[in-house]
Amino acid sequence: MISLVGFSQCVPHSQAIGQWKNPEDQFSEGYRQLESWCHIAKTLEKGLVDGFFLADIHGIYDVYGNSRDAAHRYAVQTPGVDPMLLTSAMANVTTHLGFINTYSTTFHAPYECARAFSSLDHFTNGRIGWNIVTSYTHSAEANGIGKMLNHDKRYDRADEFMDVVYKLWESSWEKDAVIQDVEKDAHTDPCKVHEINHIGEHFSVKGPHMCEPSIQRTPVLFQAGASKRGSEFGTKHAEGIFMEYPRFFEDAEFMTNKISKLRKQVSEHGREPHSVKIMMAITPIVAPSEKEALEKETWLKQFNSPEGHLALFGGHTGIDLEGLDYDTPIENINLEGMQHIALKWKGKTITQMLSQRPPTCVGSTKQVVDRMEELISYGVDGFVVHPMIQPQSHEDLVNLIIPELQKRKLFRTKYDHSTLRGNLLGSEDGLSDSNHPSAKYRP
Amino acid sequence: MISLVGFSQCVPHSQAIGQWKNPEDQFSEGYRQLESWCHIAKTLEKGLVDGFFLADIHGIYDVYGNSRDAAHRYAVQTPGVDPMLLTSAMANVTTHLGFINTYSTTFHAPYECARAFSSLDHFTNGRIGWNIVTSYTHSAEANGIGKMLNHDKRYDRADEFMDVVYKLWESSWEKDAVIQDVEKDAHTDPCKVHEINHIGEHFSVKGPHMCEPSIQRTPVLFQAGASKRGSEFGTKHAEGIFMEYPRFFEDAEFMTNKISKLRKQVSEHGREPHSVKIMMAITPIVAPSEKEALEKETWLKQFNSPEGHLALFGGHTGIDLEGLDYDTPIENINLEGMQHIALKWKGKTITQMLSQRPPTCVGSTKQVVDRMEELISYGVDGFVVHPMIQPQSHEDLVNLIIPELQKRKLFRTKYDHSTLRGNLLGSEDGLSDSNHPSAKYRP
Repeated sequence: MISLVGFSQCVPHSQAIGQWKNPEDQFSEGYRQLESWCHIAKTLEKGLVDGFFLADIHGIYDVYGNSRDAAHRYAVQTPGVDPMLLTSAMANVTTHLGFINTYSTTFHAPYECARAFSSLDHFTNGRIGWNIVTSYTHSAEANGIGKMLNHDKRYDRADEFMDVVYKLWESSWEKDAVIQDVEKDAHTDPCKVHEINHIGEHFSVKGPHMCEPSIQRTPVLFQAGASKRGSEFGTKHAEGIFMEYPRFFEDAEFMTNKISKLRKQVSEHGREPHSVKIMMAITPIVAPSEKEALEKETWLKQFNSPEGHLALFGGHTGIDLEGLDYDTPIENINLEGMQHIALKWKGKTITQMLSQRPPTCVGSTKQVVDRMEELISYGVDGFVVHPMIQPQSHEDLVNLIIPELQKRKLFRTKYDHSTLRGNLLGSEDGLSDSNHPSAKYRP
Repeated sequence: MISLVGFSQCVPHSQAIGQWKNPEDQFSEGYRQLESWCHIAKTLEKGLVDGFFLADIHGIYDVYGNSRDAAHRYAVQTPGVDPMLLTSAMANVTTHLGFINTYSTTFHAPYECARAFSSLDHFTNGRIGWNIVTSYTHSAEANGIGKMLNHDKRYDRADEFMDVVYKLWESSWEKDAVIQDVEKDAHTDPCKVHEINHIGEHFSVKGPHMCEPSIQRTPVLFQAGASKRGSEFGTKHAEGIFMEYPRFFEDAEFMTNKISKLRKQVSEHGREPHSVKIMMAITPIVAPSEKEALEKETWLKQFNSPEGHLALFGGHTGIDLEGLDYDTPIENINLEGMQHIALKWKGKTITQMLSQRPPTCVGSTKQVVDRMEELISYGVDGFVVHPMIQPQSHEDLVNLIIPELQKRKLFRTKYDHSTLRGNLLGSEDGLSDSNHPSAKYRP
């Protein structure tokens, strides 16, 4: 059985830049309306999807043209709202769907982080996940929400951050701390609530945690860092690793190797290699027939904003491609940081790279699911499904792709658990695996 | 017409310490369940109440006996969850009720604060309020969530904090910045989104704000600071001031003077004296007849935890009354900080003080509303109604007190506006008053 996670971001569009012009898309306004989000959540739950993952950024992309103009003009992940604050509305209209929130270890204190996720785990009855990010926008520092550390330092700090939150979630409140003994006038046994007394390089946190234990205690952890240090961090902590789509798709060997390497890294951390779900981002353009899918692609791509995609590229990579002829071959671009990108796009021009933004997977239901099966054969455990337009792309996932996956016995036909960790990883009690680093703090 | 705000906190009990033992109370578990909160929100909206105010603390009270044991044992505002994260669920099942969240200027960055409230104002269609606190628990500092400044310094910092968030809310995005011009491929006009470039003593925030303008822009502001500096801050910024109940109730002159003084302070800030709603906390124990109300009081008071109230007292005042005989007259307690409290409780013992925790207002519907009318005659604009048990106390407000207030033409019979600022203050467009300090940043 594979895992499926729906994807979005609380902005008009996360990756499909320009679709706000599409008259069928409802999220240019809908991104800030509870009703629209609740509709997606109910749709994904109807499809028995594991969880709904909401990305997040803090700041506005301003690398392209050394300005935030293109980000505003093309609505490149701006304007936005805070996805954490949305979760309880969606949780209240669903019973099984998980919610994966993006939360930065750079911009928040671990004590607050622990409270936020425990609260949401209570509100959702054990359906919360955390996409751990260390954050990369320099504009965030200018806005006074955290000191920008260099890449590896950020991960060192994040490692200590995880230690603090594990202690708060796993060891601060014993499972029978809340006794509610009316005769003795004792709600909580103080002897079973412990300070954590963490003193480290980056954090000093006395504790105890403010929240009584929630079902999952530690939320289900996700991570997407592709760098050496990021991958070291992810294979240690994450229970779900998000991978990007484009290049791997064309290169089976590269991808198989990459996945084996990740699993090896996981086991070097003393964990079962398959206790981590490796999930690939995919942006389907799907229809019952191939012809309809290709027409849909043509229709969708007319709304694309190429310059908006360059603003997003600039935000992600720190590389400013402004002023270059779109026919320039990628490998001829002599800018710092481009060497790595040129490898991926050998022989391609800027226009050709842009035509794959976002990196769609186009075809009939059968064709798309065939490709998913191919990716599964390379070792992928599941998919993070990105929308082209909302809410329709989520409906396509549920009405077209999932029934086909179910027909091929690749996806569940009912939820087997009530927690996110149960559905995603088979955990019976909702708690993290005994080899997970959080478990060493559990008495 | 008076204003009414429901009150709670995301803990088993905020003030009615011990009621978790009451078999009728549902919030020992309910405080962490969306369904329970949504029921209260719907109840308050049925009663046409202005808003639902959720208090919050960061940390666990540990002054009494120099330990957190009593706080745990008697469930004194612990365990808890984060009320901000609850708002969208309640907003999604209501259309007119406002939501007043407590948020600390000491523990958060203004840029994040601005995003959080703008997000909630979008999600609620203009129904969000902010109870501004500067925070006082020392345990919070030990948990690494902010440096504890001395009292006046906290307010100085809070003043600058307000300047930053006003700039983000009011001046960063012009009202026609989002143009959604499909022909020109322009979602937002970058020329109409401005950096704020704030550089001050406590904060450096470049901006722009991440969110497009919400209906109210600046949330409706509330404050409860009773100190000289707190009251200076409150009369400058707040649109609703929360006052405590007990002493004033017995002393009409003291109260009338206090309120006149507040209104005078408001006008010294260049604001209309009545543009601020002065709201008194009240904890009714009400029933159709006086006899039933007195029986209800006896029944409720049996669940009281006196020592728990002393733990709460310690948390609020920093004064540890552990080990004292409960028959000790308050004025004989020779501890730092007690002079001020002894004035309020002249001639009373600890037992007598405790018997008024929480400070209830007991009587038949008619008697309770008579008392409310008396308080109104002293200059109060409305009430923050605290529950003894949940959800029943909120139902008593809606089913008993409000119909009587309506009969006396003291309370609305329908909502006249869709925003919190509209219902509470009569604002037609949802924006703050032109004399409010936020308005000077509005172009």
